[in-house]
Amino acid sequence: MTAALTPAHIFKVGFGFWEAKALLSAVELGLFTELAKGPADLHTLSRRLGLHERAARDFLDALVALKLLERKEGRYSNTAETEMFLDRAKPSYVGGLLDMANVRLYGSWGFLTEALKTGQNQNEGKETDDIFAALYADPERLRGFLAAMSGVSLGAAQAIAAKFPWANYKSFADIGTAQGMVPVTIARAHPHLSGAGYDLPQVKPILEEFAAKHGLSARIKFLPGNFFTDPLPAADVLIMGHILHDWDLAQKRMLLAKAHAALPKGGALIVYEALIDDDRRENAFGLLMSLNMLIETKGGFDFTGTDCQGWMREAGFAQSRVEPLAGPDSMVVAIK
Amino acid sequence: MTAALTPAHIFKVGFGFWEAKALLSAVELGLFTELAKGPADLHTLSRRLGLHERAARDFLDALVALKLLERKEGRYSNTAETEMFLDRAKPSYVGGLLDMANVRLYGSWGFLTEALKTGQNQNEGKETDDIFAALYADPERLRGFLAAMSGVSLGAAQAIAAKFPWANYKSFADIGTAQGMVPVTIARAHPHLSGAGYDLPQVKPILEEFAAKHGLSARIKFLPGNFFTDPLPAADVLIMGHILHDWDLAQKRMLLAKAHAALPKGGALIVYEALIDDDRRENAFGLLMSLNMLIETKGGFDFTGTDCQGWMREAGFAQSRVEPLAGPDSMVVAIK
Repeated sequence: MTAALTPAHIFKVGFGFWEAKALLSAVELGLFTELAKGPADLHTLSRRLGLHERAARDFLDALVALKLLERKEGRYSNTAETEMFLDRAKPSYVGGLLDMANVRLYGSWGFLTEALKTGQNQNEGKETDDIFAALYADPERLRGFLAAMSGVSLGAAQAIAAKFPWANYKSFADIGTAQGMVPVTIARAHPHLSGAGYDLPQVKPILEEFAAKHGLSARIKFLPGNFFTDPLPAADVLIMGHILHDWDLAQKRMLLAKAHAALPKGGALIVYEALIDDDRRENAFGLLMSLNMLIETKGGFDFTGTDCQGWMREAGFAQSRVEPLAGPDSMVVAIK
Repeated sequence: MTAALTPAHIFKVGFGFWEAKALLSAVELGLFTELAKGPADLHTLSRRLGLHERAARDFLDALVALKLLERKEGRYSNTAETEMFLDRAKPSYVGGLLDMANVRLYGSWGFLTEALKTGQNQNEGKETDDIFAALYADPERLRGFLAAMSGVSLGAAQAIAAKFPWANYKSFADIGTAQGMVPVTIARAHPHLSGAGYDLPQVKPILEEFAAKHGLSARIKFLPGNFFTDPLPAADVLIMGHILHDWDLAQKRMLLAKAHAALPKGGALIVYEALIDDDRRENAFGLLMSLNMLIETKGGFDFTGTDCQGWMREAGFAQSRVEPLAGPDSMVVAIK
């Protein structure tokens, strides 16, 4: 047994930051957007992206080996996935999340050990009480953050549009809607629905622009509000995606109680997150996301479906169920 | 086809720094060394390692999900691999390399985009001509670096000991030997051999201590030298592991020529590295290692087996062959 052991898995995980940073820099440099215009050779790509000749070939071939580029007869091109998801010109772009990882999270995670010892967040909001107040105060950073949230919610939005029994409902509101990826995706799939995106007032022009771009201005309204100080909007279905994990337990309970108060009898609350599996031993992304909340927020943490169902029961919901969505995301559906 | 595409692979690679940093912090905190003493529950481990209660459970369960820890009935323990390779008390410890990644490389890689644009190294030696001069000048950092090199060469050393026809030779010298992992591993496997470790004079006490610990002081000598200004030592077999990739092409050629000059006719040179596959599209680790040389050194780069065989031919070697070793490493064997 001993003879067969190798440190390969340990090194693969431990040097994962090399792979990650190669991709994050490629997104930063606009590589995939450039290649969406057509395949290009080493010399042409280097010139267009400003890559130094010492670095360019290893960088591009590393991305080939990571299955993020293709190379045929000396010309590089996108894979089907990078063409679809990392071309800034396409609505399916998810690179905003990687931009955020590159600009903010990579550096903050360098302080993970300190966070583990102190329980304190380690981002640029270290000295402020509220990372979101800082983000929302700066229009440029707000746009970047909201675009990142679209990247993280696209797959879940499509799955919620497909799996939830929308035929039984007429209206919905997405709480903490960001750009509006979730209401846009659901409204496109279900023409009978009218939807709303609820977020802080600064988000209004961003959501309205996003809804208009998808021809959905008539069916998706922006509702301004602060879910700590205001009630939640009334609708048949309320959705909270990647919202609860930002906050501590008392705040989570308060938000669930407000959702219960805003819904009609028979109304539904959909909470979706990278839910940790109940046994806390499978969904590494969900557990690491919880460490990301440690690094990014004052009291946030991720949770299991069973955790969430317990809090929903306490908030007065009559029944609930957990369903997997896309990738690491699952939803908890609760009925009032 | 379009409907089946998901950004899962993109996110898996792009957030690889979360997984990596969780492991690097675990090594930094001594988690695996602690668990090598016996399984422990959340409370006990948190107290011993100084983990904050907000962070501890998610951190440990994330490592379970990453297959780096086990958890049974609430007690955490090492996996077979982390027990073998990440307990500081064992000679098979490879965590020195991860310590180096944690303390130096993670931060330097944050500047990858700048390195790609400028071709300039981005480490703490940015303003110095020679990263190795800086490392070797500081005894504490030197010990850390040399231990890290043992971590990266253990698997290759075992494979070279097993695969090379040592019965045909009597003596060998390892050029740039660091702690001496390669000569110790080979000498233990082949009692008829006498070996030497060649490195800068500062390495003498470190190699001699390592050889003595393995009871090999009689068969492994330390040979002081600087391979830029001194000739290489005479021996039937010379070994250069993870040495050539540190240097630019002219320096690589000079080192190969010196090896040729030092060998007897029929003598062998073994070069081992994380060789890039000849088509430059499979060995992601080798290509990323080359980007690591971009970040760490003034002119270093990794290379393919065919690249190396060409330089060996130019240096006068009569024949050469490439053989895979362990993990991403391969060796090129050249005969004078």
